Amino acid sequence: MDPKAKKIVAEYKKAGARIETKSRVKLKTKEDIALWYTPGVGAASNHLAAHPEDARLMSVKRNSIAVISDGSAVLGLGNIGPYGALPVMEGKALIFREMAGVDAWPIVLDTQDPDRIVETVLAIAPSFGGINLEDIKAPQCFQIEKLLIEKLNIPVMHDDQHGTAIIVLAALINATKVVGKTMKKLRVVISGAGAAGTATAKLLRAAGISDIIVLDRGGALYAGREDMNIDKQELAVITNPRSEVGDLMHVLEGADVFIGLSGPGLLTAEHIGRMAPDSIIFALSNPVPEIMPDEAKKGGAAVIGTGRSDFPNQINNALVFPGIFRGALDKGVTKITEETKLRAAKALAALVLKPTANKIIPDIFDKRVVPAVAKAVR
Amino acid sequence: MDPKAKKIVAEYKKAGARIETKSRVKLKTKEDIALWYTPGVGAASNHLAAHPEDARLMSVKRNSIAVISDGSAVLGLGNIGPYGALPVMEGKALIFREMAGVDAWPIVLDTQDPDRIVETVLAIAPSFGGINLEDIKAPQCFQIEKLLIEKLNIPVMHDDQHGTAIIVLAALINATKVVGKTMKKLRVVISGAGAAGTATAKLLRAAGISDIIVLDRGGALYAGREDMNIDKQELAVITNPRSEVGDLMHVLEGADVFIGLSGPGLLTAEHIGRMAPDSIIFALSNPVPEIMPDEAKKGGAAVIGTGRSDFPNQINNALVFPGIFRGALDKGVTKITEETKLRAAKALAALVLKPTANKIIPDIFDKRVVPAVAKAVR
Repeated sequence: MDPKAKKIVAEYKKAGARIETKSRVKLKTKEDIALWYTPGVGAASNHLAAHPEDARLMSVKRNSIAVISDGSAVLGLGNIGPYGALPVMEGKALIFREMAGVDAWPIVLDTQDPDRIVETVLAIAPSFGGINLEDIKAPQCFQIEKLLIEKLNIPVMHDDQHGTAIIVLAALINATKVVGKTMKKLRVVISGAGAAGTATAKLLRAAGISDIIVLDRGGALYAGREDMNIDKQELAVITNPRSEVGDLMHVLEGADVFIGLSGPGLLTAEHIGRMAPDSIIFALSNPVPEIMPDEAKKGGAAVIGTGRSDFPNQINNALVFPGIFRGALDKGVTKITEETKLRAAKALAALVLKPTANKIIPDIFDKRVVPAVAKAVR
Repeated sequence: MDPKAKKIVAEYKKAGARIETKSRVKLKTKEDIALWYTPGVGAASNHLAAHPEDARLMSVKRNSIAVISDGSAVLGLGNIGPYGALPVMEGKALIFREMAGVDAWPIVLDTQDPDRIVETVLAIAPSFGGINLEDIKAPQCFQIEKLLIEKLNIPVMHDDQHGTAIIVLAALINATKVVGKTMKKLRVVISGAGAAGTATAKLLRAAGISDIIVLDRGGALYAGREDMNIDKQELAVITNPRSEVGDLMHVLEGADVFIGLSGPGLLTAEHIGRMAPDSIIFALSNPVPEIMPDEAKKGGAAVIGTGRSDFPNQINNALVFPGIFRGALDKGVTKITEETKLRAAKALAALVLKPTANKIIPDIFDKRVVPAVAKAVR
């Protein structure tokens, strides 16, 4: 292990855990026990048995989110299983607590079978106010999320899909202003047809962008291409209007925007050079982007975003998920709609009053972020 | 709803929830984010993917217990489902936090199918350091607990069974001292062949008491009685050495101890009058005991315990479960054995230096309780 990673692991061991539970009531006297435990709890139980809807008012369900992963597609690390995924889920629970006052609990699953994942989440749902799915591989994630949204009356969001799509759209709105182009006329190339790439393509379409080409390892998705699963077939039908065939180098010709949601080092300055002038590059592979910002600039990129904190424009869904669930919990919203996602992206973009090449999205510590996103949920 | 229950519900609504999450690390700067979220979390994830056993050292698994119920047998309320059970599970999470510094999270299940319960708990187990099953009806609870203990490498305990059995044994050890009798010679009658009655009978046997008769609604269990499920058949074989047949009034003749784990108001002074002199009465049905203490005294009872806080000798498993899991988490103990339960009961009893008729078990706020029980786990 490299020394930096070793040091981080040592810090995690020193911390023990990053979140814990805390009492919200006092438990110091026999009277406290009688009220908050036995026998008082019997009255609360009786009430909720008759009025389950009041669980939102008088139990942890009021403010709690399960952050759930099977560890099949951990960002940048791949299929590393539940224990590998646990630190990420716990980190999200920490972000939920610190940024939005949400009680999130990490739950990693000892199964990667989509049916068992759905059954498990359905079974544990009553105690939670929402379900944040995370780091579940495509295409399984699509069906899992769809079934859970259908069957549950609490909000369910696969953050790799929609958190990413929302923050990318927010960043794109402002980057487009910086280069003086028009959103609806943009030509967009998305590298990566996984969870994030698919959801981003769909949300950009919902935002009015019609010229989007999505690529997987086999090149551009186009209607009729063989070797595509059902989700890619559907995506191919609603994208790639000119039915372009070919690799990244080919489809980038004349494109205004590159969005990398795939893997490290796919792009060179030469790729960027083929794009239209004032190109926008979001190289979101983490920790190593599809192209480093210096190299992208060399190719002529006008606005560059990455997933990293050590470059300008960190495009991070930590700006999104706390506010989405904060809003849903506060308002009892049970479905996160496409309209909500569009409003959230616009609200995030609007927080940057004068976008520049180095400032297209708000800072993660900007106190306006969570309220603005939460307000978009309705 | 009676005014008192109404007032309690209002208090619960005012509190919103009784537990929440709390950060254990600081998240104030970009450096904090880089360490505790992205990209730092990648090193922790990589490490745990290779060394899942270290989840006990550097994640919530270190100190967390899932408090799980299907709401099929909520104490005193019956089968009231997951939302009815939620306040009890949340109350236990509160007790875990306050008494033993354990991070417990309530999880109520939208299923009462034993196979689905087992599958669900197996699936979510990786994020937890232990599983506290609660308020699951008999006989399903026996098989569910057995399978989970077999298949998981974290401690699993159905508290209605073993928490109750341990505290009853602890109380009985001291009550026996008060009346000057000998444990092994006691004649014990247990009313209730559910989760608590069954586990209590087994633990008392393990403690050396051989003369135990267990009754269900159909009267005494005896080997060969028809109308008994497999669990009761097994229990009948190891109890009732004289093969007594009959009802409570009959089997109480000459008994030293009555343990009520059944329902309110089953016993009268007349029942007690048939027992041996200096009888011990644990009337644990809650909130209404099998017999009220005054009535039991009238019948000649020498030591009386109930589940209530408004009488002496509150026999409450809140004295047990926090310490059992505190000990298991601290020592990495993965099975709660019969030996552990015996040691825990003896340790609890030993905390009362001079037992009297009104003081056979320690107070719930006695700071020695959790360490003493935890020490018994090894």
